[in-house]
Amino acid sequence: MERLSFAVDCMGGDYAPLEIVRGCILAADDLGYRILLVGDGERIEKILKKAGRLGDPLLEIVHAPEVVGMEEPPSAVLRKRNSSLYVAAKLVREGRAEGLVSAGNTGAVLAVGKFVVGTEEEVERPAIAVALPNPKGWTVLIDVGANVDPKPRHLLQFAVIGHTYAEEILGIKNPRVGILSIGEEEGKGNELVRETFPLLKQTGLNFLGNAEGRDIYAGTFDVIVCDGFTGNVILKASESLGLAVVQMLKEEVKKSLLAKVGAFFLMPVLRKLKKKADFAEYGGIPLLGAKKPVIITHGRANAKAIRNAVKVAGEFLSTDFNRKLVENMRSLMPEVAKV
Amino acid sequence: MERLSFAVDCMGGDYAPLEIVRGCILAADDLGYRILLVGDGERIEKILKKAGRLGDPLLEIVHAPEVVGMEEPPSAVLRKRNSSLYVAAKLVREGRAEGLVSAGNTGAVLAVGKFVVGTEEEVERPAIAVALPNPKGWTVLIDVGANVDPKPRHLLQFAVIGHTYAEEILGIKNPRVGILSIGEEEGKGNELVRETFPLLKQTGLNFLGNAEGRDIYAGTFDVIVCDGFTGNVILKASESLGLAVVQMLKEEVKKSLLAKVGAFFLMPVLRKLKKKADFAEYGGIPLLGAKKPVIITHGRANAKAIRNAVKVAGEFLSTDFNRKLVENMRSLMPEVAKV
Repeated sequence: MERLSFAVDCMGGDYAPLEIVRGCILAADDLGYRILLVGDGERIEKILKKAGRLGDPLLEIVHAPEVVGMEEPPSAVLRKRNSSLYVAAKLVREGRAEGLVSAGNTGAVLAVGKFVVGTEEEVERPAIAVALPNPKGWTVLIDVGANVDPKPRHLLQFAVIGHTYAEEILGIKNPRVGILSIGEEEGKGNELVRETFPLLKQTGLNFLGNAEGRDIYAGTFDVIVCDGFTGNVILKASESLGLAVVQMLKEEVKKSLLAKVGAFFLMPVLRKLKKKADFAEYGGIPLLGAKKPVIITHGRANAKAIRNAVKVAGEFLSTDFNRKLVENMRSLMPEVAKV
Repeated sequence: MERLSFAVDCMGGDYAPLEIVRGCILAADDLGYRILLVGDGERIEKILKKAGRLGDPLLEIVHAPEVVGMEEPPSAVLRKRNSSLYVAAKLVREGRAEGLVSAGNTGAVLAVGKFVVGTEEEVERPAIAVALPNPKGWTVLIDVGANVDPKPRHLLQFAVIGHTYAEEILGIKNPRVGILSIGEEEGKGNELVRETFPLLKQTGLNFLGNAEGRDIYAGTFDVIVCDGFTGNVILKASESLGLAVVQMLKEEVKKSLLAKVGAFFLMPVLRKLKKKADFAEYGGIPLLGAKKPVIITHGRANAKAIRNAVKVAGEFLSTDFNRKLVENMRSLMPEVAKV
């Protein structure tokens, strides 16, 4: 079996290039993949040399002199053809790598995913999904940031992508699909939701109707569809609420000895819960609908997160996700909404 | 001093009319207000009679034969002029009551608030705000459900309403105002946000720019402005996350004796935290910008919640909120966005 290659953007993220290069070394060592380290050749060489790994056949440097800044508009990357991100995406498009990992400007990663790596023919707008925990299992929220102003037909595509994610990745049969709204009945919600609802009824999905905010962590739906603006603020608000509760808890615990004792005994449970809730820290999230794995990691990704992101790329590749997605797009979408 | 009168819609809510009427009795007894009990006269009379309170001068029945259903579109109430909700609002408009409380169809309550009670001249769209807890204090999120598809100039009004709420109700001087978006820099976000941002810069507000989802519970802003669709799903998702965490914690604690001991000692702390987080259960939330207090309570409101909602109406009336709001609308809004 041939060794898989993945391209890693070594210049994106808060700790680039040092932590990213270290993550590439970990990925090569732990996972056995061949890593194409894309970025400032001289700097990457220096780091590899210091680690005693220069010339390692699993760690190939691909020089790219430009960098996409975190504040640049996403479209800028498409003009910066010598940037580490663009070059990494081109390696995937040309078949020299099987997938791409970047901790850089998220919008720019989405842009190269869509326009350089490219999407499956049936998918007009790739999307990002997260699996959020609930007492009974997981609920897929899609989209959480790739599309801020989608049209109704895009939400339909997100629904089919989310359905495929729930079935193929989470193993949920015939997932219950809802559209995020305010109010349960058809006709409630904003204009986008009201226009999308009747189209969703025409799909072959197990569409249950409007989901409300309270359904997100309740386990009443397996897939909840929304625009990427709403999904993103919900995701980040949830993380922030978790952090705030933990901090408020700590402050209160400080004030009482008994509470301190209680907190000590509860620690293992809290750690377990935190692990379940730490949905954003698995290393990376794939852009669903792209032809090859495009893995977006947190800007604060360290070496371990980069290694995990490469692992996610490899795992994603080994699933049947894209083949099933294309099948589902063909069989579940109503004619009116097909690309 | 003349006794204040409040109109209570006795037919709205899951436990109407029994719990609502009981709430009216509590309000009269505890707060000393005169309550106008609006709804099916015969049924209300029966309940009052059973409680031995028929003929009590603080409890006046106002017969209204129709009811607005929970599933009816909000506009329906404006045609149902004999409904308990419409009649209650009319009592306020005519000056026979100083404010209105309803646990009924939220959209319909908003509609009568806006079109029957009416708004201050300077306010085109009244809005609903909630104060969300963070480790340092409170952050006002506005709008959380009154306006699902607002225009940029409406968001500007929400910002001034939120500013006034933070100053007058929470006592925060020169509150830091942000607009909810994805990405920190100007130019990031959806179309609505991108169009509103430059207008917000022209106001006299202490506008700090884009707030992200993670800012909501972080204490980095005092007021965060958003459309009512996004605000509502965030609010409900937060409540649902809190419930889910508690439930998952309970399940885990069950599995371990040590954890049980820990949970026992931590109980007082958890209760204190829960109280702080229970932001939606204070009894009622006022529709800000309406000429008189219009208090929306939870559909599941019981007698105590109705009493608390009447209390909120009285307290709101005693603040300088509306006078300050009108002043702020005049002094802080840029000419281009004035009504």
